[in-house]
Amino acid sequence: MNADPSYDPRTGEQRGSVPHTSPERVAGILRLASAAAVIVADTSPTTRLGWLTAIADALAAHEPELVRIAGEETGLGADRLRGELAKCAASTRFYGAVAAEGSYLQAGTEGIGGESTLSRWNIPVGPVAVFGASNFPFGFGVIGHDAASALAAGCPVIVKAHPAHPRLSVRLAGLVTDALAEAGAPEGSYALVVGFDAGLQLIDAPEVTAVAFTGSQGGGMALVDRAAARGVPVFAEMGTVNPVFVTTDAAATPQEIAAGFAQSFTLGAGQFCTKPGLLFAPAGAGIFDAVLAELAQVEAAPLLTAGIAAGYRAGVAQLAAAAGASAPAEAVADAPVVAAETAADVVAGPAADGAAGAAADVAPDAAAHPRDGYAVAPRAIRVRLDDLHPGSRLLEECFGPVALVCEYEEAGDALDALVRLQPSLVASVFTGGPGDPESAEVVRRLLGRVGRVALNAWPTGVATSWSMQHGGPWPATSRSDATSVGAGALGRFVRPVAVQNAEPAHLPAALQPDNPWRIPRRINGKLTVPSE
Amino acid sequence: MNADPSYDPRTGEQRGSVPHTSPERVAGILRLASAAAVIVADTSPTTRLGWLTAIADALAAHEPELVRIAGEETGLGADRLRGELAKCAASTRFYGAVAAEGSYLQAGTEGIGGESTLSRWNIPVGPVAVFGASNFPFGFGVIGHDAASALAAGCPVIVKAHPAHPRLSVRLAGLVTDALAEAGAPEGSYALVVGFDAGLQLIDAPEVTAVAFTGSQGGGMALVDRAAARGVPVFAEMGTVNPVFVTTDAAATPQEIAAGFAQSFTLGAGQFCTKPGLLFAPAGAGIFDAVLAELAQVEAAPLLTAGIAAGYRAGVAQLAAAAGASAPAEAVADAPVVAAETAADVVAGPAADGAAGAAADVAPDAAAHPRDGYAVAPRAIRVRLDDLHPGSRLLEECFGPVALVCEYEEAGDALDALVRLQPSLVASVFTGGPGDPESAEVVRRLLGRVGRVALNAWPTGVATSWSMQHGGPWPATSRSDATSVGAGALGRFVRPVAVQNAEPAHLPAALQPDNPWRIPRRINGKLTVPSE
Repeated sequence: MNADPSYDPRTGEQRGSVPHTSPERVAGILRLASAAAVIVADTSPTTRLGWLTAIADALAAHEPELVRIAGEETGLGADRLRGELAKCAASTRFYGAVAAEGSYLQAGTEGIGGESTLSRWNIPVGPVAVFGASNFPFGFGVIGHDAASALAAGCPVIVKAHPAHPRLSVRLAGLVTDALAEAGAPEGSYALVVGFDAGLQLIDAPEVTAVAFTGSQGGGMALVDRAAARGVPVFAEMGTVNPVFVTTDAAATPQEIAAGFAQSFTLGAGQFCTKPGLLFAPAGAGIFDAVLAELAQVEAAPLLTAGIAAGYRAGVAQLAAAAGASAPAEAVADAPVVAAETAADVVAGPAADGAAGAAADVAPDAAAHPRDGYAVAPRAIRVRLDDLHPGSRLLEECFGPVALVCEYEEAGDALDALVRLQPSLVASVFTGGPGDPESAEVVRRLLGRVGRVALNAWPTGVATSWSMQHGGPWPATSRSDATSVGAGALGRFVRPVAVQNAEPAHLPAALQPDNPWRIPRRINGKLTVPSE
Repeated sequence: MNADPSYDPRTGEQRGSVPHTSPERVAGILRLASAAAVIVADTSPTTRLGWLTAIADALAAHEPELVRIAGEETGLGADRLRGELAKCAASTRFYGAVAAEGSYLQAGTEGIGGESTLSRWNIPVGPVAVFGASNFPFGFGVIGHDAASALAAGCPVIVKAHPAHPRLSVRLAGLVTDALAEAGAPEGSYALVVGFDAGLQLIDAPEVTAVAFTGSQGGGMALVDRAAARGVPVFAEMGTVNPVFVTTDAAATPQEIAAGFAQSFTLGAGQFCTKPGLLFAPAGAGIFDAVLAELAQVEAAPLLTAGIAAGYRAGVAQLAAAAGASAPAEAVADAPVVAAETAADVVAGPAADGAAGAAADVAPDAAAHPRDGYAVAPRAIRVRLDDLHPGSRLLEECFGPVALVCEYEEAGDALDALVRLQPSLVASVFTGGPGDPESAEVVRRLLGRVGRVALNAWPTGVATSWSMQHGGPWPATSRSDATSVGAGALGRFVRPVAVQNAEPAHLPAALQPDNPWRIPRRINGKLTVPSE
């Protein structure tokens, strides 16, 4: 295969394809990026704010076209895609503003005895390879958080198109390339490659100094391992099962909890890395039954690809089997049966295992691209606390609209179970308010296992802001000190350097005596912020 | 072998030994560290400043004893050891002060729409394993930059004794443990383990959340690989060949350059990770000959261990062979021949290769511990620019008092060679002053390859200060974004977390509305520093 075919998940029909980038062309892109790196590194953050603003403007100006193509390749629906595109444009501007504010440079200078001085600041690492995700064509695609924050930090970006949306990737990359050129960015600041082999070539290329990836644990860890051979950092945001804890007090409103949960874990057909995958609620409040009732109202939605749909069916079967060994018969929700979805899909046992194996190998052939698309029904599965032990399938992510509900008898037992889960990106806690006696301890335990705890809010909302942390301990990400959303995202693409006894000519504007960029700096140990 | 023998490098004599820590005892230490982590994480930075001050006081109070034991195990000389101990005490206080200043917490809070808020700050990662270095018994030993910065950041520390100074490790650890206990730190905040197997147990222990290592590339990369299996970050400071560039203008004072170079690369018998390993100077200034003349005045000094001495002899032979293939006969300096050092040590050829193999396997038996100690003579080797190609032995570190001198005809050719070197921790540039036309470009190229550039200063001086960067791109370190000296050192041992819609009870003091710790914070996007 020397092209990425484009499929419509709503119908399974192919609409064209995008040719893979040849090794020679990738090599040329790498050379240009390397040359551009020197030029981009020398630009001011304000200049790059201008570039990012131009990109955001171009995205906004092409909304109808972009939303149409994205809809054809993802089936995510126009409203969702319109919202995601608007957020992408806003976050692109935000990363430019974060660069211009200048704290990310961590600039400082000081005397270190006698006439000696020492100055330190962050420099861009160089060309960054970005491997975007299937599930956020605008948020984590060929533009989005990774690409925009890398550009803001002063690094050229080479993006690899995700095979789930190749046509959109080409169109977006064209808009970004044109916007950058018109805004004055050097050739080589940004480029797109298509195809698996082109991606491998990026990972192995000496020109590439950092890698950002959003996707599965398997894919992320493969990149981490491969890049480790030459010491290149891979910031892989992989995602795991994000837990939700409902305290005894909060369970007083079971309908509200159930409705919010069902909405959150079926958002975007459950294809969120922040999907709440496992909810703990007190027994007796009827939350599982309420979730089932809510699911009956949720329409089936197409998953992004035939492979994801097959993986989802196999995963649901595995979860049902893992829960069914000790769970009551109603464990698997009798959700509405939709096109391409039959009861057999969730039957536990050897047949399901076979399906799982097949899913891993699923080929994008006609059989796997049924005319009725990749639609699946949402599922909820009841699990017992005792079954949530390390190594259980129940503790691993299943991509798509399925979630587990664990109704606990004793809050203490559920709290103990929390630390047996894989670390994750985010957790939610529903409390009865400031006086809730359980909430402080729940938050405390979760903070040791996740990157973010949302109180009385579902985990699927991720603000692009100064204080966002979108990361988490391994294996939720490969770098628990990093974030792929929010102001901290720039920090992945810089490294500190120091110059001792520098003449002004050797120092960047960030450290010139008159502070021309008007940024926060640490002078002789004291952090100073320019007045407004 | 179930004990680390203690040898005197000046005589080769054994003075006792220190038993290895049993697996059961290591397991107990890990349990205690894990329990302590929760308590330490909840202390204020000012409390930990108190602990670190108590450690520094204890070190200072025991100077004569500590310098005596260190001298017996390292042969580094009382003056050097006294200076290093004083710096260790000062840096221990400094890391406490950095914690108290509070910027390392990166605390911030903001509104994110409606009544929603988001707060973010850094939490300590948990127990840190520290693998100290042979060459800085106080600076990077069982106490020193790694251990002190981890404690300052709020992490319990488990240190592994370096086999080069087991008795000193035990004494230091005893002082630190007592000082911490008296200052009120919880049991488990700090512990020592002895032995290779105990070290492996730390790397594999789920309780250990980060590792700091200072030493060889081989050792560091082995730890990185092993810890990668469970996603634990290893901050390995490994060191490479640190280049020095002398511009045409600066070569007007060849004697001064030569004297400074010889002093810098023979400091501590050349056992510095910041040792200048390769000097570029314009041809015709006579710098290599001047260096040879300087070396004639440098007394032989014992290396730290029999293995290091054997490795040095083999390394010098390899370097001479690599240089000799095309270099003139005087390439290897005819340095003073000292005890245990013969001309055969620097003969190139198959015999030298054999010696290199033997060095790797050297056993601490009687034959390897000659009565006359591990003293070696310093060496300078002239190399040709053309021989500095990737893969050459000339570009790899040789631990001990040997350095290369490359006399260039064209500054441009030497500049091009700079980017063929392995990235390194630090580089020095000697210039003719602010008007030197070459210096800006040299600094510019070096900044892409090193962590620090020292202008008109030798690389071996490393200040513990706010703006120090002691790190460098891989393979100089495993994490180019990190530093193991200076205020940034704390950043290795924290990770960011965010809480959405937090009640005050769920937030740390760092984010309480009245800012009780009086630290810099980012409120609604604006960085604010408390007034004095």
